[in-house]
Amino acid sequence: MLQLEVQVQEQRKPQPMKTAVMVIGGAEDKVHGREILHAFFNRSGGSDAQIAIIPSASREPAIIGERYRSIFQDMGAKRIELLDIRDRVQCEEPAYHEFLEVCTGVFMTGGDQLRLCGLLADTPFMEKLRLGVWQGRLTLAGTSAGAAVMGHHMIAGGGSGECPNRSLVDMATGLGFLPEVIVDQHFHNRNRMARLMSAVSAHPDRLGIGIDEDTCALFEGDGIIQVLGKGTVTIVDPAEMSYTNQPYVGATDPISIYNLRVHILSYGDRYDMRQRKIIPSLGEGCVTDQTGT
Amino acid sequence: MLQLEVQVQEQRKPQPMKTAVMVIGGAEDKVHGREILHAFFNRSGGSDAQIAIIPSASREPAIIGERYRSIFQDMGAKRIELLDIRDRVQCEEPAYHEFLEVCTGVFMTGGDQLRLCGLLADTPFMEKLRLGVWQGRLTLAGTSAGAAVMGHHMIAGGGSGECPNRSLVDMATGLGFLPEVIVDQHFHNRNRMARLMSAVSAHPDRLGIGIDEDTCALFEGDGIIQVLGKGTVTIVDPAEMSYTNQPYVGATDPISIYNLRVHILSYGDRYDMRQRKIIPSLGEGCVTDQTGT
Repeated sequence: MLQLEVQVQEQRKPQPMKTAVMVIGGAEDKVHGREILHAFFNRSGGSDAQIAIIPSASREPAIIGERYRSIFQDMGAKRIELLDIRDRVQCEEPAYHEFLEVCTGVFMTGGDQLRLCGLLADTPFMEKLRLGVWQGRLTLAGTSAGAAVMGHHMIAGGGSGECPNRSLVDMATGLGFLPEVIVDQHFHNRNRMARLMSAVSAHPDRLGIGIDEDTCALFEGDGIIQVLGKGTVTIVDPAEMSYTNQPYVGATDPISIYNLRVHILSYGDRYDMRQRKIIPSLGEGCVTDQTGT
Repeated sequence: MLQLEVQVQEQRKPQPMKTAVMVIGGAEDKVHGREILHAFFNRSGGSDAQIAIIPSASREPAIIGERYRSIFQDMGAKRIELLDIRDRVQCEEPAYHEFLEVCTGVFMTGGDQLRLCGLLADTPFMEKLRLGVWQGRLTLAGTSAGAAVMGHHMIAGGGSGECPNRSLVDMATGLGFLPEVIVDQHFHNRNRMARLMSAVSAHPDRLGIGIDEDTCALFEGDGIIQVLGKGTVTIVDPAEMSYTNQPYVGATDPISIYNLRVHILSYGDRYDMRQRKIIPSLGEGCVTDQTGT
């Protein structure tokens, strides 16, 4: 009972500077409430925020970068820099490294996740960014392709309209900010359940996370995932998976997968990634992100 | 060990006349191997089969009915009758009732499941057919719309490309041959996972069964489901569902659903619907339908 009260107090306490990794399913609201982008702005420090925008996934980095710059400017960020990395050699740029030392939020845009990884993976810039995230010095957000790169195993592409099979999903290596998860985005919008299940059956030591458009899975440092936005976050948990023929069948053959646990989470729902269980909400209403709006 | 041997012997014994309910996900192969239709033919007695075709779901019942008649004729069925019911009053037709007394297999075609239910539900014909199925006197097969009607709760229509929500699925009352299940068909082909999950969250006392095209969930009298064909059968089991806000949210709001258990089953896999668990296959190979090919 005492513990419950402590929890309630903890949740009510405003935590504007509590960093997080925000994994956004793409197509987040940029015009009206901007709920998710506002949560990122707040988590990055609000009016003290120093934000780096990495538009490198996009083929039109200047256009998309400026769009986000203008949004965070409107919100009142203290400083915003566009790190328009188009070549791996730019990852050694001293000005970028200096800004990484002081910035409080990094936003990775959409585009092509393979392009983003090709530019950033295994660079000193990437190492410094990952360290900043793990140390809780900054909030990292990625949308669409910027979300796909979060895990160690990354969904690089794939299809829908088929039963789970190996050829339904193309895997590659991601940037590994959240190595324990495999992220898929535009999730129910583009009918990607079968491809995420295919990916998870090949990597049953990971947790599948499917994020809808205009929806965010907010990862706290303590392994708690919280849902923001208009859609759902789908958890595909293979911890109890008892059998799959995934390694033994042809590339286009249907896969058997026994005993997946699936959760559909909506706004305010919370999930403990380490315990692999839902955190019940307190009271009638959902537990919501106090800093998000 | 003894028990295992008995099981093996049981499975190897040919059971050509063992009746079943065959729930087919639509678009079953009618030209080449015809595996599923052949399994129906065998289960109905092979060359002794007396088959009733019910094309009433279709708007072109004569065309579709004749197509199946020609297929089962090719296979060598003893007698085939097209029960072209286009009006509920025909459900009292003495000739149809007489044939139901002797027939060994009934095949319901695709079309519109609401049309099929509108014509057959709560008629003496339907009662006699259901009794025949439950007594194991005949094998019943339904494909597409003919599959959708199998449960008590029926998916009448719906959408895809959205997260689970109440408006994603239109429910109606089915013909109730397998009252404990909610069937969806053309399953992964038409990306129907979210709609089946939406349906199951509203009826957590049922079992969700999603069947791909050219795939069959074969229900034995003892509650065992066996998979035939080219795709997968997806089981969405809400037995451990711990929470859903399904009844409390707006029609288009995303739904939370905690703790669904999902199995993807492919050819030869077997599932015990009453125990709600997978039946492990014996030995390296999959347990296959001996009577199906």
